[in-house]
Amino acid sequence: MLDRARALDAADPLAHYRQQFLLPEGVIYLDGNSLGALPKATPARLEQVVRAEWGEGLIRSWNGADWIGLAQRVGAKIAPLVGARPHEVIACDSTSINLFKLIAAALALRPGRRAVLSERGNFPTDLYMIEGLERQGLAQRRLARRDALEAALDEDVALLLLTHVHYKTGELFDMAGLTAAAHEAGALVLWDLSHSTGAMPLDLAGSGADLAVGCGYKYLNGGPGAPAFAFVAERHQAALEQPLTGWFGHAAPFAFYEDYAPAEGIDRLLCGTPPVLGLAALEVGVELVAKIGVERLYAKSQALSEFLRECMGAHGVSLELVSPGDPAQRGSHLSFRHEHAYGICQALIARGVIGDFRDPDILRLGFAPAYLTFADIAGAARHLAEVLAKREWQRAEFAERALVT
Amino acid sequence: MLDRARALDAADPLAHYRQQFLLPEGVIYLDGNSLGALPKATPARLEQVVRAEWGEGLIRSWNGADWIGLAQRVGAKIAPLVGARPHEVIACDSTSINLFKLIAAALALRPGRRAVLSERGNFPTDLYMIEGLERQGLAQRRLARRDALEAALDEDVALLLLTHVHYKTGELFDMAGLTAAAHEAGALVLWDLSHSTGAMPLDLAGSGADLAVGCGYKYLNGGPGAPAFAFVAERHQAALEQPLTGWFGHAAPFAFYEDYAPAEGIDRLLCGTPPVLGLAALEVGVELVAKIGVERLYAKSQALSEFLRECMGAHGVSLELVSPGDPAQRGSHLSFRHEHAYGICQALIARGVIGDFRDPDILRLGFAPAYLTFADIAGAARHLAEVLAKREWQRAEFAERALVT
Repeated sequence: MLDRARALDAADPLAHYRQQFLLPEGVIYLDGNSLGALPKATPARLEQVVRAEWGEGLIRSWNGADWIGLAQRVGAKIAPLVGARPHEVIACDSTSINLFKLIAAALALRPGRRAVLSERGNFPTDLYMIEGLERQGLAQRRLARRDALEAALDEDVALLLLTHVHYKTGELFDMAGLTAAAHEAGALVLWDLSHSTGAMPLDLAGSGADLAVGCGYKYLNGGPGAPAFAFVAERHQAALEQPLTGWFGHAAPFAFYEDYAPAEGIDRLLCGTPPVLGLAALEVGVELVAKIGVERLYAKSQALSEFLRECMGAHGVSLELVSPGDPAQRGSHLSFRHEHAYGICQALIARGVIGDFRDPDILRLGFAPAYLTFADIAGAARHLAEVLAKREWQRAEFAERALVT
Repeated sequence: MLDRARALDAADPLAHYRQQFLLPEGVIYLDGNSLGALPKATPARLEQVVRAEWGEGLIRSWNGADWIGLAQRVGAKIAPLVGARPHEVIACDSTSINLFKLIAAALALRPGRRAVLSERGNFPTDLYMIEGLERQGLAQRRLARRDALEAALDEDVALLLLTHVHYKTGELFDMAGLTAAAHEAGALVLWDLSHSTGAMPLDLAGSGADLAVGCGYKYLNGGPGAPAFAFVAERHQAALEQPLTGWFGHAAPFAFYEDYAPAEGIDRLLCGTPPVLGLAALEVGVELVAKIGVERLYAKSQALSEFLRECMGAHGVSLELVSPGDPAQRGSHLSFRHEHAYGICQALIARGVIGDFRDPDILRLGFAPAYLTFADIAGAARHLAEVLAKREWQRAEFAERALVT
């Protein structure tokens, strides 16, 4: 398969972008969906922010280096990646915090309705943030299985909160279809785009979405714990109220008024002082993804994941695929179920193939198309075949048992 | 006065710490209370975090570089600066977000009480975050002037929220006295230590404080928009409930349970994924402050501010002092009232003396004692005298009017 991989790499129009990332030698990185790789331009940009803007400019850089507009500027650069307009997206806080703001905002926009509907098995923080508002007495969490979501949309549902690409299985929701169904029932929709943004084209505008959040440290390559982003469709901005009413979301932050008055537009999603270092690193990652283009990234990611399945077949490796077999039905990762998934994941890491284990029995392999090669994929399949043939999971499982007993 | 300044610098046991900071040539920086200067060790530490930990270590660094314990580790290093125990402080989110968590937590700890009492003219974000909970229908904001606070403590007050050092005037609250008064009335106390931490010794434990927050980018030198910190006295931790229930505050974040269960202790204040770059920079700043020692920093800050007043006197400069004249009654900055404060501040900046203007008529000069010299202070006084003598504020005011008309 290595010959075929080399041919695919030679024909890959995105192959040269790997040079835009700093990746360690001897590693096949199949976890860019958990933490994206380091863009080559990031260290120099951070050095500039730290030494020149902070060290030399000091407080003057809020204006002089436009730190004051950084959250909006990075948001505007994320906007085209998710099918939004520049003034509809802002980069700030964490995905969890942004979920809280927008769930609360949706409840305020739908007075009389209290239920927030989400998928059973959705990423935990999405479910926990609904619970936070539930404990405040302001929301009622309602969970349904994927195939029962539409039936659960009744006149008490204020908001449908879904993760577009499932963190475990990679399954895709039909964004336009579910948005229409929610609107039909009088509910708003909040899309969590954490596992989609930067890996595939998205069309928030075309699908009629109301609200969205997404992660900065996965396919956007913003660095560990990078700021997240939030989207509010223009039609909702004027009426939007969110409870984290900090001074940076004020209409006049530096007038130091005693009473809160929200800023115009998307700026009212800001709360505290924006994290300049994190935003600066995120901006580099976003610019790189935008330059490559999400359509091309998506096409390559589908080709990479299908090539892995082909290589696994050639090695006679048969693992239960938890993700949809049709690449059009999934995001940019593949998950396999195996009772020894934990040990297999550890054995792969020991061989330099970095994937993810998801409790209790899922091996998750991500295909960050900006920097992976088809040769990486052929190598990963070969290592996987060897780990299985030699039952290398046993050593990791023994070490784990030794730790806990 | 320059001779006297030189003598004071020669006798200053902290003088050599200025070499631990990267400060621009030709600048006298009297705004370290707004954005602290850049520690010399920070760029190298960030380079290591970015290139080695993120770039080489990738996802493995959550364990390999202990990113997973970073919020707690930085919190534990802040703890002795504020008179707390290591497990009572955590570094996370922004001051505003942490205020929201702790105001909500205090209301939950005092069921039946709804009022949150604060000082009229407190820093806006403190007041706005109370409003956020008020708009949710969960709190009632009550404001009183400084001298009327104790009288406003009645049986409906769940929480007294005060900023220890006033952002504008520098006035100090008696932390132990007001905490006792609040407890007497059955209320909890939340101290905002943004303008105190790193500039003076604090004794949260000795004063009986319940809750506190503070800023990472002022005297802690954590960089622009650095993560903030939060304190919860051990006796409140087990019962503490806060509504921003994200996955990093869960008892088992990587078990991916559907239902939220708070982590033990201070960890339950975490919400989303911690901002690694920001925390790493903050850690450097905190370590440096801890090494110098807050007692020595406070003594020097008092000497610096008193020396400025002495120099101003020698130059025949008489400005209305808004801050307490007694250094024991104030924090680490001095504020002066002048109808042309904006123009004076701009004229000083043009001369390389960076202070702060606070609407509408306050010139605020901060004395970050870790890197200021007495010669800086003598120079600042001379520039101030010249700006006033030459009425240099006129040019800045003209430019401002030209901008807005």
